[in-house]
Amino acid sequence: MSELTLLSENKVAGGWHRQFKHYSNTLNCEMRFAIYLPPKIELGHRAPVLYWLSGLTCTDENFMQKAGAFKRAAELGMIIVAPDTSPRGDGVPDDENQAYDFGLGAGFYVNATQSPWQQHYQMYDYIVKELPDLIEAEFAVTPQRAISGHSMGGHGALMIALRNPRRYSSVSAFSPICNPSDCPWGVKAFSGYLGDDKTNWLNYDSTHLIKQISHHDFIPALVDQGEQDQFLTAQLKPDALIQAAQLNNYPLVYRSHPGYDHSYYFISSFIDDHLAFHAEYFN
Amino acid sequence: MSELTLLSENKVAGGWHRQFKHYSNTLNCEMRFAIYLPPKIELGHRAPVLYWLSGLTCTDENFMQKAGAFKRAAELGMIIVAPDTSPRGDGVPDDENQAYDFGLGAGFYVNATQSPWQQHYQMYDYIVKELPDLIEAEFAVTPQRAISGHSMGGHGALMIALRNPRRYSSVSAFSPICNPSDCPWGVKAFSGYLGDDKTNWLNYDSTHLIKQISHHDFIPALVDQGEQDQFLTAQLKPDALIQAAQLNNYPLVYRSHPGYDHSYYFISSFIDDHLAFHAEYFN
Repeated sequence: MSELTLLSENKVAGGWHRQFKHYSNTLNCEMRFAIYLPPKIELGHRAPVLYWLSGLTCTDENFMQKAGAFKRAAELGMIIVAPDTSPRGDGVPDDENQAYDFGLGAGFYVNATQSPWQQHYQMYDYIVKELPDLIEAEFAVTPQRAISGHSMGGHGALMIALRNPRRYSSVSAFSPICNPSDCPWGVKAFSGYLGDDKTNWLNYDSTHLIKQISHHDFIPALVDQGEQDQFLTAQLKPDALIQAAQLNNYPLVYRSHPGYDHSYYFISSFIDDHLAFHAEYFN
Repeated sequence: MSELTLLSENKVAGGWHRQFKHYSNTLNCEMRFAIYLPPKIELGHRAPVLYWLSGLTCTDENFMQKAGAFKRAAELGMIIVAPDTSPRGDGVPDDENQAYDFGLGAGFYVNATQSPWQQHYQMYDYIVKELPDLIEAEFAVTPQRAISGHSMGGHGALMIALRNPRRYSSVSAFSPICNPSDCPWGVKAFSGYLGDDKTNWLNYDSTHLIKQISHHDFIPALVDQGEQDQFLTAQLKPDALIQAAQLNNYPLVYRSHPGYDHSYYFISSFIDDHLAFHAEYFN
């Protein structure tokens, strides 16, 4: 088991926000993550874990600094883990133009198969296996997990939950990239990490996966989307996901919010609903 | 009256966060501020205003992105205005070493008397007069004002309220610089902006002012301080303020919080209390 190194800590809402680094054998580099431990942990109790996947350009810090989630997480007795969005470090290749939407900060939660990405860009396995194993070994968690995220991280959360429905009790997303095989961000990322054979992309596309999943494996799913989101029609494509869910009678809860955009101002407005949603299915 | 230019807007917690710029005749430069307008404004109602003064290195953005204040402000029907922390722009002099604690980002809410600062660094007049006049002309406000802030901004809020107790119904602060005449940050700033005659410093020192204020002018005052704040003993010196308040029988509410530090994680943990405190005296 990897050793954890504490990088920073802040008391917040009666609990603790902590940043750790550890060596990831999956990603072949040192990784940082942040965790919120609600007050009940210091009192000797265990808590379920919500994994939060962030979007393009983000690190573990965006959600922790801007989402305003701690008070409700403290009340609900929920741990929140926010990993980084890609492998990092001197040996990790980046986009040749340092683009914001590929390479560092843009791992897209896939296991890369293409050179030079495949040595480090194995974010799918890191999020699904290595990081939960580490969290469950090192912190006072219950067996319950949920997963959520924003934008690229909303894609990650939905896709991972749909592929691993027995590992998560519920899934939610803000402004997710719903159909990455068919939008510019996704096509660029999947071409680069997975190659040109689009049949390999479908395993990472929630609009495809939600049509395939067995009814026995349906888990509660909530998606919130702002109607003034500048990426709504070109990149996010929630209509594709909604139609695919309907084809399979998947009970996706989709909420469309007039006036809201793609920012953390939107997330902070509705994060309490997501925490309550996940808490309901933890119990 | 200056014209306002809208720079950005985000719907949040049912209301609107907006950034504006305007030309300040007090500061002789263009200034940016942010405002939160609760949902009641769109319904045609007026709301009281809480002014929030930020700390060293901050702009209007820190509070708006990190404090997590919008939900409670929406419920309480309160406008929040966050000005910048100093004059800005190409013509505005900065510390020769671009120090974080003097010059740009560090106006200390005083009216500078020393060259080359006095042409632009008139933050006291900007906060007390020009900005409220602008807000009251341009937005649907009631006559009630309160003021709060963090660190350098906590100093600003307390000092301004103690000097203008009839302009504000209440004051609060997180981790304020309580006795700037007697700490390294304050001595550096006051020497630079106000010169070496320390009698001129006392008008900007809350520990001095709270001893002088008439009992008829006492307004409700709340201070929150984290006990793990790295600046507590060398820079913030709340004990000096507490003792001075006691000498004058000023009913300062001072709360000391074990484990909390100087960050926005602390502010976000208790901001709802401050909003409720100010709302009580608005009514």
